[in-house]
Amino acid sequence: MITRMSSLFLRTLREDPADAEVPSHRLLVRAGYVRRVAPGGYSWLPLGLRVLRNIEAVVREEMAAIGGQEIQFPALLPREPYEATGRWTEYGDSLFRLKDRKGADYLLGPTHEELFALTVKGEYSSYKDYPVVLYQIQTKYRDEARPRAGILRGREFVMKDSYSFDLDDDGLAKSYQLHREAYIKIFDRLGLDYVIVAATSGAMGGSASEEFLAVAPTGEDTYVRSTESDYAANVEAVTTPAPPAQPIEGKPEAQVHHTPNTPTIETLVDFLNSADLGRTFTAADTLKNVIVKVRQPRTEDWEILGIGIPGDREVDLKRLEASLEPLEVSLLEEADFAANPFLVKGYIGPKALQDNGVRYLVDPQVVTGTAWVTGADKLDHHVVDLVAGRDFTPDGTIEAAEVREGDASPDGKGTLVAARGIEIGHIFQLGRKYADAFGLDALGADAKPIRITMGSYGVGVSRLVAVIAEQHHDDLGLVWPRAVAPADVHVVIAGKDEAVFAGGEKLAAELDAAGVRVFLDDRKATPGVKFADAELIGVPTILVVGRGLANGVVEVKDRASGNREEIPVDQVVAHLTDLVGR
Amino acid sequence: MITRMSSLFLRTLREDPADAEVPSHRLLVRAGYVRRVAPGGYSWLPLGLRVLRNIEAVVREEMAAIGGQEIQFPALLPREPYEATGRWTEYGDSLFRLKDRKGADYLLGPTHEELFALTVKGEYSSYKDYPVVLYQIQTKYRDEARPRAGILRGREFVMKDSYSFDLDDDGLAKSYQLHREAYIKIFDRLGLDYVIVAATSGAMGGSASEEFLAVAPTGEDTYVRSTESDYAANVEAVTTPAPPAQPIEGKPEAQVHHTPNTPTIETLVDFLNSADLGRTFTAADTLKNVIVKVRQPRTEDWEILGIGIPGDREVDLKRLEASLEPLEVSLLEEADFAANPFLVKGYIGPKALQDNGVRYLVDPQVVTGTAWVTGADKLDHHVVDLVAGRDFTPDGTIEAAEVREGDASPDGKGTLVAARGIEIGHIFQLGRKYADAFGLDALGADAKPIRITMGSYGVGVSRLVAVIAEQHHDDLGLVWPRAVAPADVHVVIAGKDEAVFAGGEKLAAELDAAGVRVFLDDRKATPGVKFADAELIGVPTILVVGRGLANGVVEVKDRASGNREEIPVDQVVAHLTDLVGR
Repeated sequence: MITRMSSLFLRTLREDPADAEVPSHRLLVRAGYVRRVAPGGYSWLPLGLRVLRNIEAVVREEMAAIGGQEIQFPALLPREPYEATGRWTEYGDSLFRLKDRKGADYLLGPTHEELFALTVKGEYSSYKDYPVVLYQIQTKYRDEARPRAGILRGREFVMKDSYSFDLDDDGLAKSYQLHREAYIKIFDRLGLDYVIVAATSGAMGGSASEEFLAVAPTGEDTYVRSTESDYAANVEAVTTPAPPAQPIEGKPEAQVHHTPNTPTIETLVDFLNSADLGRTFTAADTLKNVIVKVRQPRTEDWEILGIGIPGDREVDLKRLEASLEPLEVSLLEEADFAANPFLVKGYIGPKALQDNGVRYLVDPQVVTGTAWVTGADKLDHHVVDLVAGRDFTPDGTIEAAEVREGDASPDGKGTLVAARGIEIGHIFQLGRKYADAFGLDALGADAKPIRITMGSYGVGVSRLVAVIAEQHHDDLGLVWPRAVAPADVHVVIAGKDEAVFAGGEKLAAELDAAGVRVFLDDRKATPGVKFADAELIGVPTILVVGRGLANGVVEVKDRASGNREEIPVDQVVAHLTDLVGR
Repeated sequence: MITRMSSLFLRTLREDPADAEVPSHRLLVRAGYVRRVAPGGYSWLPLGLRVLRNIEAVVREEMAAIGGQEIQFPALLPREPYEATGRWTEYGDSLFRLKDRKGADYLLGPTHEELFALTVKGEYSSYKDYPVVLYQIQTKYRDEARPRAGILRGREFVMKDSYSFDLDDDGLAKSYQLHREAYIKIFDRLGLDYVIVAATSGAMGGSASEEFLAVAPTGEDTYVRSTESDYAANVEAVTTPAPPAQPIEGKPEAQVHHTPNTPTIETLVDFLNSADLGRTFTAADTLKNVIVKVRQPRTEDWEILGIGIPGDREVDLKRLEASLEPLEVSLLEEADFAANPFLVKGYIGPKALQDNGVRYLVDPQVVTGTAWVTGADKLDHHVVDLVAGRDFTPDGTIEAAEVREGDASPDGKGTLVAARGIEIGHIFQLGRKYADAFGLDALGADAKPIRITMGSYGVGVSRLVAVIAEQHHDDLGLVWPRAVAPADVHVVIAGKDEAVFAGGEKLAAELDAAGVRVFLDDRKATPGVKFADAELIGVPTILVVGRGLANGVVEVKDRASGNREEIPVDQVVAHLTDLVGR
């Protein structure tokens, strides 16, 4: 069916919307694909809905290809299953909660692990039933603190979430790999430039986890990649290469120095270098001790934790939190210092921590035999040449220090550079958390129960509309890849005389009959207005029917390259049918 | 792609679910189409989702055929637009309301009139833009007091809601007619037995309104139809034919009688017939006066209203409320009687009402010249021969009396009989209520604003899965019409030997290649189990590949009729391809 611009529910805008921060938001609104209804809530106008559906179709095909079976859950869910896994509370303010007329608690589903696990438990019982992969393409809800960038980060959005159910870890690894390959196919078909980055598995307790990030300077996610290898990772997932341990023997003894007014690393280094100690110190020679408090989720009691990192780096709170998950992390308050007088602000050292039973974790660079300048647990005093493994013994290591461009890549090849991206997919070996919560077992061949292991895999379907726009646009407007474009050919009738109109109508009808999805600009507008709208809307091929028609030619313009070609009117249907692959 | 029963996420149940009241619920659960997640919340398993999608596709095609353009709104909506139209309050407990993290009020959309009106206002400005028909197929939410019958009445469900926007009443009538015809096509294609009944336009203030009801003895909606014409109507929409007015002259004078202990119609009639008044009375000769109180929605003050209906009928509260919409209606409390001492319980007559300024509406049968026995506004007293138009003058008529089987059909042809149905569609001339609320105007050719008039049209898409099942099943299971069936052919491999399996696989592959949607029961189960599942699941055509294969024949069974036919194996693919119309 031909889509006529004269009746299409569409008004393009000349001005950028006031709240648009990123190109995709600006263009999707200007070109009439989406409209804002509420913070983080958008309506899909006809063009936007077509692109969304095209993306869904690609996702469905690739999910079916790996044996995924589509089902669909309600979005309005009872509290109980989420209470059983703790997520009712853990989600905090990000969960939309409500009560029904009887006062029962409900939520709007952010993801559906609980429901999938319960449903498989309800239907399946024997080991012969497994493995199974189920998925849904569904509207999800998260009460984002800062919904932004149009449909890039909404509060109501469409996700494909799938879940694999396997009898053992090998099975899970295989299901994970199948999804990884399916995601590569999906994002390739959608014409995306993306990287696959190692991610932390976090609270879920799973083993493997990777994110698919679309490369975008406007992206919210920072990741690092190696200058000389394929290595890429979320900053939270970067591991710090540990240097080899050094011999302790022969190291100078630790000495406490009076270092007045040196509560910061900078003042300390300046003091040391002016103190005539026979060598030069840098911030990297100092060991900075940061104290936080942690607790198990939904418990009362905090425990104090010491973190030691080289003084030339800051603590990256996100990395720290990711390392400590599922523990809650908080900074100390004055009351905490008052209650623990051994914590001498600005001069905290490993000794007081360990003497007072405080768990102490250090950066992986703090290996046995390394010597450090650090606090002496006394106002205006530091200790020099405190040697790890001799003068103090950490309780373990932790990834808490910031990652910097130029750091060595964890795979040993090249150094790290930072880049920004937008998360478009996430694959994740969940493990048995949800199976444990609900007792999801299969009866084995030996009649013994086998605890099922799960994988969880998400694609941000509605977000992809914006991500593709983010990567495929120019100054004039959107430039859709053919796989998701709202139409194949945008026929512009450029001229007012009847013959041109009739010619445009005839070509549009012939293209439509040939299975080509056609936009026909049959409005009584100037060619200038029509061209501008065609460029803005971004259908990959523009067919201009204008004055040339009298000479038997029409113009085919490639939206992306801007290339124009005159084609004899009697060949253009075959030419375009071939071009668009119908 | 062949759907294999060996890996399909499906477990059929032998037992009916405990909470299933109606056949569709029972069978959709037993055959593994849906599963209950919460009261009124169901998940769609693979088979159910396919049927749902097939129905959606039919709806989409017919909406596109009348020029409907698909868009999609969020389900999570801000309070303000619904506040503007009063529906935030009017929906009462049926609306799911919630707050976001900032405390702002939201609702889960029950229907989207407000959003559609606002969106058209946002995009369109000129009279040249109109008419337009927009629709969505979307998940909706209503906090039903009694969710029941599985997906027949859920709290989360899928609806197609469309809205027409026209410049004038003629345009609206045309848009309405287009929808009416589209709905007939949709429900015919879905194989439904349904009636179109006149409905009340209610609070919306529109003029025309019709409901499509699927005929079903289990239906919640009662309607009446004529024994001798096409007339059908919701009970609320039935109009009472008024008899011709009678001459007043010559009627006996009204006389008050002492009628002790006659507070009910029955005791009154008995008394009159034993009182030697020279004639026989029936309940139909009496005029019963029922007093209610009414008020404008969201206001404080009640007004008393008198309703006079023939004493042989009860007041039908639903009809009364529909007649009085949008007013709120309540029965009187003791305090009301105390405050209005002229209301003598059991003996209320028109006189006291009119003397005290109480509005008084009567049944359309109470025409000028009719004489009635009614209350004399005094304990134990009634008045006989009180003549309408002489002794009292009602303020108007009202449809409040119950409708009974045997009543004359309002179209003058035959009498009414009652029947039950399930609402599957509703078409409705909304008029200007929403355009007024939001100032939705088009700029006319004369530069003057034209207030837009709207129509609203709904199809209960997810409910249709149940309604079709309700009309298409037998003792063995579901019997899907081909247009919505989850597959075209269910291939049952009936036998364990390899040749039979290989034969079944080969035929399934050939059918699949020919574009036929195939279920293949390749499980290692007994033929009995497989047959029972095939009957329960209800694919229209069952192909049995069994012992006959050795003799070159297979069996084709029609699920609906039970007819079996042996077909040579080398002809069966052509036979089935032809049969299913692929």
